[in-house]
Amino acid sequence: MSETAIAGYDYGRVGPSPVGKDDLEALKAAVLFGPEDEAALRRAGEVLGDQVEAILDVWYAFVGANPQLVAAFAGPEGEPVTTYLDRVRPRFGQWIKDTCLRPYDEAWLAYQEEIAERHTPAKKNKTDHAPSIDHVPLRYLIALISPITSTVRDFLARGDRPAAEVDAMHEAWRKAVILQVALWARPYAPQLW
Amino acid sequence: MSETAIAGYDYGRVGPSPVGKDDLEALKAAVLFGPEDEAALRRAGEVLGDQVEAILDVWYAFVGANPQLVAAFAGPEGEPVTTYLDRVRPRFGQWIKDTCLRPYDEAWLAYQEEIAERHTPAKKNKTDHAPSIDHVPLRYLIALISPITSTVRDFLARGDRPAAEVDAMHEAWRKAVILQVALWARPYAPQLW
Repeated sequence: MSETAIAGYDYGRVGPSPVGKDDLEALKAAVLFGPEDEAALRRAGEVLGDQVEAILDVWYAFVGANPQLVAAFAGPEGEPVTTYLDRVRPRFGQWIKDTCLRPYDEAWLAYQEEIAERHTPAKKNKTDHAPSIDHVPLRYLIALISPITSTVRDFLARGDRPAAEVDAMHEAWRKAVILQVALWARPYAPQLW
Repeated sequence: MSETAIAGYDYGRVGPSPVGKDDLEALKAAVLFGPEDEAALRRAGEVLGDQVEAILDVWYAFVGANPQLVAAFAGPEGEPVTTYLDRVRPRFGQWIKDTCLRPYDEAWLAYQEEIAERHTPAKKNKTDHAPSIDHVPLRYLIALISPITSTVRDFLARGDRPAAEVDAMHEAWRKAVILQVALWARPYAPQLW
């Protein structure tokens, strides 16, 4: 699916982030994210690029099996809103590619803030006109660092790269996810962020 | 150092957490934390128990080398408050042991809430009468999942256990840290947590 065909995928078309480049550099240092991780993510993007749908299958199955997680996609009766889940999916897939292949520059930072707001009452549901709860609970945003990272290892290992390189790609992926969750936490607690 | 000698270490002497056991179980599921992780943490506690001071040396060196992190221990002039850093250290060491060896029950949940509040304006600095900023920024609380986890692997590997067991202990440690950071995020955004 081409990027332009993804509903609600507005990379490059959102306003600037309140988070500055210096803030980002300080955060990258706290996460131990360095140039070697950027390089490893580029390689991870090559390995994962063809496996995005299979990764999403694993993640959607995990969310679907956990009522406390699927609740973020539920309507007023508590039933999962299928059209909402379906519309988010290609953006989630594109996020895998963006995490690996985009430079972490101002445009990226701006889009992290857009993603952040889409988890909170400011913008949740609006992109997809979804009748659902008004935020993703902060605790699950943080908790998902674990499955979103551990499940990727098998896919990285399918690239026939040496084990040490799989480890490096996996570690870079982990840091990139933690970095993004830290950025996504901002609108939950702007004064204490 | 015995637990009772640790200034401000109030495990078992704080009020109940607003987070219930059901919330904890749901969060553990989201983090993929299961009985095998509990068992691995017990073994990790045996391996790490004698190395706590060396681990703290690594962590304190990392924080000290990062001005954006040491700021949480800085006074009004921006200088690190040494007495504050020194008083926190034995509690941080005890936290390593508690993470590995305590059952994650109501008492543990209550103390997680106490730790959480001590990162926010509700209680930061009070335990140590420290003249410092009134909160640890939420983004660094999340970011520190990375170094607090990656630096522990070498110490786990010094226990002469098989590599697969070191991996299991490390993964359990990682999940336990993510779980606790998720709990510690609560007072930053009580309505959206």
